[in-house]
Amino acid sequence: MSFSVAVAGASGYAGGELLRLLAAHPDFDIRTVTAHSNAGQPLASVQPHLRSLAHLTLTDTTPENLAGHDVVFLALPHGKSGEVTAQLDADTLVIDCGADHRLTSEADWAQFYGGDYFGAWQYGVPELQLSTPTGSIKQRDNLVGARRIAAPGCNASTVALSLVPGILAGVIEATDIVSVLAVGPSGAGKALKTNLLASEILGSANPYAVGGTHRHIPEIAQSLRAAGATDVSVSFTPVLVPMSRGILATSTARIVPGTSADAVRAAWQDAYGSETFVQLLPEGEFPRTADVIGANTMLMGLAVDEAAGRVVVVTAVDNLAKGTAGAAIQSANIALGLDEATGLPLNGVAP
Amino acid sequence: MSFSVAVAGASGYAGGELLRLLAAHPDFDIRTVTAHSNAGQPLASVQPHLRSLAHLTLTDTTPENLAGHDVVFLALPHGKSGEVTAQLDADTLVIDCGADHRLTSEADWAQFYGGDYFGAWQYGVPELQLSTPTGSIKQRDNLVGARRIAAPGCNASTVALSLVPGILAGVIEATDIVSVLAVGPSGAGKALKTNLLASEILGSANPYAVGGTHRHIPEIAQSLRAAGATDVSVSFTPVLVPMSRGILATSTARIVPGTSADAVRAAWQDAYGSETFVQLLPEGEFPRTADVIGANTMLMGLAVDEAAGRVVVVTAVDNLAKGTAGAAIQSANIALGLDEATGLPLNGVAP
Amino acid sequence: MSFSVAVAGASGYAGGELLRLLAAHPDFDIRTVTAHSNAGQPLASVQPHLRSLAHLTLTDTTPENLAGHDVVFLALPHGKSGEVTAQLDADTLVIDCGADHRLTSEADWAQFYGGDYFGAWQYGVPELQLSTPTGSIKQRDNLVGARRIAAPGCNASTVALSLVPGILAGVIEATDIVSVLAVGPSGAGKALKTNLLASEILGSANPYAVGGTHRHIPEIAQSLRAAGATDVSVSFTPVLVPMSRGILATSTARIVPGTSADAVRAAWQDAYGSETFVQLLPEGEFPRTADVIGANTMLMGLAVDEAAGRVVVVTAVDNLAKGTAGAAIQSANIALGLDEATGLPLNGVAP
Amino acid sequence: MSFSVAVAGASGYAGGELLRLLAAHPDFDIRTVTAHSNAGQPLASVQPHLRSLAHLTLTDTTPENLAGHDVVFLALPHGKSGEVTAQLDADTLVIDCGADHRLTSEADWAQFYGGDYFGAWQYGVPELQLSTPTGSIKQRDNLVGARRIAAPGCNASTVALSLVPGILAGVIEATDIVSVLAVGPSGAGKALKTNLLASEILGSANPYAVGGTHRHIPEIAQSLRAAGATDVSVSFTPVLVPMSRGILATSTARIVPGTSADAVRAAWQDAYGSETFVQLLPEGEFPRTADVIGANTMLMGLAVDEAAGRVVVVTAVDNLAKGTAGAAIQSANIALGLDEATGLPLNGVAP
Repeated sequence: MSFSVAVAGASGYAGGELLRLLAAHPDFDIRTVTAHSNAGQPLASVQPHLRSLAHLTLTDTTPENLAGHDVVFLALPHGKSGEVTAQLDADTLVIDCGADHRLTSEADWAQFYGGDYFGAWQYGVPELQLSTPTGSIKQRDNLVGARRIAAPGCNASTVALSLVPGILAGVIEATDIVSVLAVGPSGAGKALKTNLLASEILGSANPYAVGGTHRHIPEIAQSLRAAGATDVSVSFTPVLVPMSRGILATSTARIVPGTSADAVRAAWQDAYGSETFVQLLPEGEFPRTADVIGANTMLMGLAVDEAAGRVVVVTAVDNLAKGTAGAAIQSANIALGLDEATGLPLNGVAP
Repeated sequence: MSFSVAVAGASGYAGGELLRLLAAHPDFDIRTVTAHSNAGQPLASVQPHLRSLAHLTLTDTTPENLAGHDVVFLALPHGKSGEVTAQLDADTLVIDCGADHRLTSEADWAQFYGGDYFGAWQYGVPELQLSTPTGSIKQRDNLVGARRIAAPGCNASTVALSLVPGILAGVIEATDIVSVLAVGPSGAGKALKTNLLASEILGSANPYAVGGTHRHIPEIAQSLRAAGATDVSVSFTPVLVPMSRGILATSTARIVPGTSADAVRAAWQDAYGSETFVQLLPEGEFPRTADVIGANTMLMGLAVDEAAGRVVVVTAVDNLAKGTAGAAIQSANIALGLDEATGLPLNGVAP
Repeated sequence: MSFSVAVAGASGYAGGELLRLLAAHPDFDIRTVTAHSNAGQPLASVQPHLRSLAHLTLTDTTPENLAGHDVVFLALPHGKSGEVTAQLDADTLVIDCGADHRLTSEADWAQFYGGDYFGAWQYGVPELQLSTPTGSIKQRDNLVGARRIAAPGCNASTVALSLVPGILAGVIEATDIVSVLAVGPSGAGKALKTNLLASEILGSANPYAVGGTHRHIPEIAQSLRAAGATDVSVSFTPVLVPMSRGILATSTARIVPGTSADAVRAAWQDAYGSETFVQLLPEGEFPRTADVIGANTMLMGLAVDEAAGRVVVVTAVDNLAKGTAGAAIQSANIALGLDEATGLPLNGVAP
Repeated sequence: MSFSVAVAGASGYAGGELLRLLAAHPDFDIRTVTAHSNAGQPLASVQPHLRSLAHLTLTDTTPENLAGHDVVFLALPHGKSGEVTAQLDADTLVIDCGADHRLTSEADWAQFYGGDYFGAWQYGVPELQLSTPTGSIKQRDNLVGARRIAAPGCNASTVALSLVPGILAGVIEATDIVSVLAVGPSGAGKALKTNLLASEILGSANPYAVGGTHRHIPEIAQSLRAAGATDVSVSFTPVLVPMSRGILATSTARIVPGTSADAVRAAWQDAYGSETFVQLLPEGEFPRTADVIGANTMLMGLAVDEAAGRVVVVTAVDNLAKGTAGAAIQSANIALGLDEATGLPLNGVAP
């Protein structure tokens, strides 16, 4: 079976990664690639690493060009997806890699993004545990048959998956969470900003959005609340480091007093023991971002720091792959009834 | 005035930085450089960047070779300084850049290092505030005329200086401190370990000593207690990132309920407003490690995250310079009665 | 059809890349992975990025452990393959990624490597043009049905493929070739050497084997002579730069006087116009190593510098992939009668 | 003695390095710093590493603001210096770090730059040997008392100093020179271009200006001709690599037949044996860029490749320091009658 696919925003980093992964997927046929200022150019001149797609040419990102495909992936700047998708068929599977359809709270949207609010779609994090009145499920159950899916923010899904097992199991507190992330600049896209120049980032670690202003904070809190947390506080600090891809998130939370280290570890083991793409490493092992580059894989290491009374979860992910494009394709696989792992690489490119 | 100087461990990274800074110091005359396996080699073959010292030859690290100097700097592996210094004259100024003389608690030493305990010397962090029965002082007061000084651990002094002002002023809590550091591999020295190979670190963020095992934790706690904290808990996670030098420490602590953001900021402003080498940036600005490379400068940015109820202090330092060798020389300046800033660079090498 | 496979030297970088590519190959079944000092360990503890192979355990590199497979890949230090392979069945396909079986000249071996000479095997560079009395062929013709194949040196095959088209077409001179390569440290393996430490390589460009001493020089000359060159001189300088993988080779040769720029370009176009994995970019475009990371792809850009009378060929390759493991698997595909491109990625992982 | 100084273009990388070095110079008093779009901002917000100059504010780059200083350093985009300098006093020392006043040939200017030609000034490379009818001199002789000096192109001075000794001594040929450079992106300035983004450069080696189009080529040829070469051909290829600063130039030239290796080496030894800032390393040693970061030092290693009939000179320099700002200040020292080495660092910041 082959599904026809269009990718909007194909000239950017997320768009390029969607194409790289889609090109290796047996069930997707990339028909259309669109862009804004690069429309009219051969794809190969903008994404020269995509040799197998060198026959494609970028066209304009218009509803007309995106119409008529089974699946449309959007990798557009925040605020741009809403307009486009309103004009696509309801039975077209649309996966938005932007933020426009992630937040269920219009107030959060207004505070952290602003502009028109487009409403939330199904959240594209299959492994995310949800608390329901009848017990916990995983978000993948909600993705079956979905036709509108919001791929997650890379930092947000990383932190949420790092901590939700402990929330759901009641072994950690949702207040006083602290998460500090070492992130590569590709997450910020190809925007021409001085602080993203190579000379600024090589040989340096540069913090940004310090003090509670990062846009992924409400998205994290939303996932923690969906796992049952009522009172959530997250101190979140991203630090740009000199690697093109990758997130290494160090997230800590207070352990509920009286909980044993084994019980803490068991919560994560229960959550991810049977998952393919989210793996908990053996005790005492911690992941490096190199281990997941190019892969749809999230690796976690967990330590219980008894002196500090905190669990420390260190999680490695490729922001462009499992963080964005991989999550989008994994979600599309589920929505379309394909095997969830179809076409998605599990092994990282290291060293 | 010129003081004769010997540097032991001159073939390593800390030794090299000591020499680079000492070579630019108007009052020090480098007479002797010693090493272990590189003894007998020209310094220039091991430290080819030190062109102005190309006339020196490495000799063995023995008490005999170190004797007869006004000042001896030690940059030896942990556990090696104790033996050597016992045989140096009491009126020789000895500055140990290793850990052997930092911890005042033998129990901490036994737990985190092990082996013979040599006792604590004056701690070489001049800007560190100390709580005393008669009011707060700074550690520089204790360094005047000292003849045995322990230069700090680079991570430890960075985190301590980041948080002590809030402790001393009573505006933050010492429990539930979380500190995550992006660090360059030069802090780990020239040891031949697989995890320090370039192929392992390029393009990757690699955590280590996760979960409360890092040796700088008791050193941090010691400084916080000296500032008046009674109940201290620190979750501390270092992450190796692909830059040769530099530490970017993101440290957060709960704000004492009822404290205004202005009062929080004022604590740090009071602590460092008149300091040369530890500077608080204006509100809304945060430092990059590039800004302090090669300099004896520590830069801090501070944010009050009201939603999280935490202060976030982001601090940049060059682990080899202000983190180790610069602190050592600054302390030596004080001990010898020189102007504290003599010979120490304030401006970083950026980009 | 499924071939059973063993990989010797599975704990190193080349071995890891063989496994990463083999794991994605539909016709190979990895049964055995061997190592030296890491024997007995789970593969995942040494190669944590290979999640799909986490069930494997490293065994000792012995003829017994390697026996009984359809295909054996060797990624051993130079001088170690010869002993092992002598004891493998003649009808086992053996691909050596080391240097032991590359050089046809025992004198070259003695001069550049030394130790026992084991004789040359078929050279695993399918796209390499060879001059024969009856016209040119490509090396892939010699690989069909082969059972002993020497995968190339990564630098050597890169430079040879960069220049052989011009030699064979008679448009460039083989004397006065100059090639300078920016290379990542993974090509040097996991050896614990000070000059391979991250602190030595981050932020620095470091030359090595300057002045005609690099071991890949005779291998390059051998390929140029096989293309018809009689008098060969190659000035070859590799420079380590801070990227884990990748070679960017800038190779120049004098253009035969009277040759038009079009005729020069045509030689390369003729050589590679129908190749999948060696591609000449359009005029005016030049490759970056990022474009080929993780891929079995070599990209070339060519310029005719009329003022200098030289062709400049800039070639990008992933030293571990197309430079080593990819070439090995591509050659194995041919030897076994599979489609040459089976299981090999064409698209690079960028950015 | 203190000279008042203005720096135009103080918000860029070259301007920042001028300020860093000037701040450490005992005889210069930085009074004025000017910029274009950043005028009005505190210097510290644009150059946060220059802590000792945090009291300065950027003003507009106008002749009025630059007037009235003893020395004016210009770090402006190409084509911008000419207009400004025409309005400065003839007895003001003006050092232009741009290209406007480097080329003595208007035809070269027209071919490689275009726009108004402003004429050549004294070339700011003190160590450059010149052939004169009465014997060789060095360019520093021409700088004494000069009031208009053109600081060199960083690549151009590096290649010229690498090869001129052999040209002047008659031991190498000026035809068929090949030079390939690994360069950091800071040489391209703070321009907002996609190819200078961190995501494009991290983990990758990227060639540019391939095939004889780089603007430093005529500047190199000019220096070689000034050393006596008549027929010059230079194949020149720069490669961007992931380090913020530094040039590692590998330059090769054919040795004049019959010349001994000793005679070749002697030419460079004679040229630089008594120089402070241009040093030839002992035989068999080659420099790394890390060894010269932040320093006004150029290090060379030289090999005679007898098989290739070529000398290979590998030269490391910091493009911003000795390559630009250091050369400018060194030249200013000479012009003003100060000791040539005043205020200039000799030791690099490594690792």
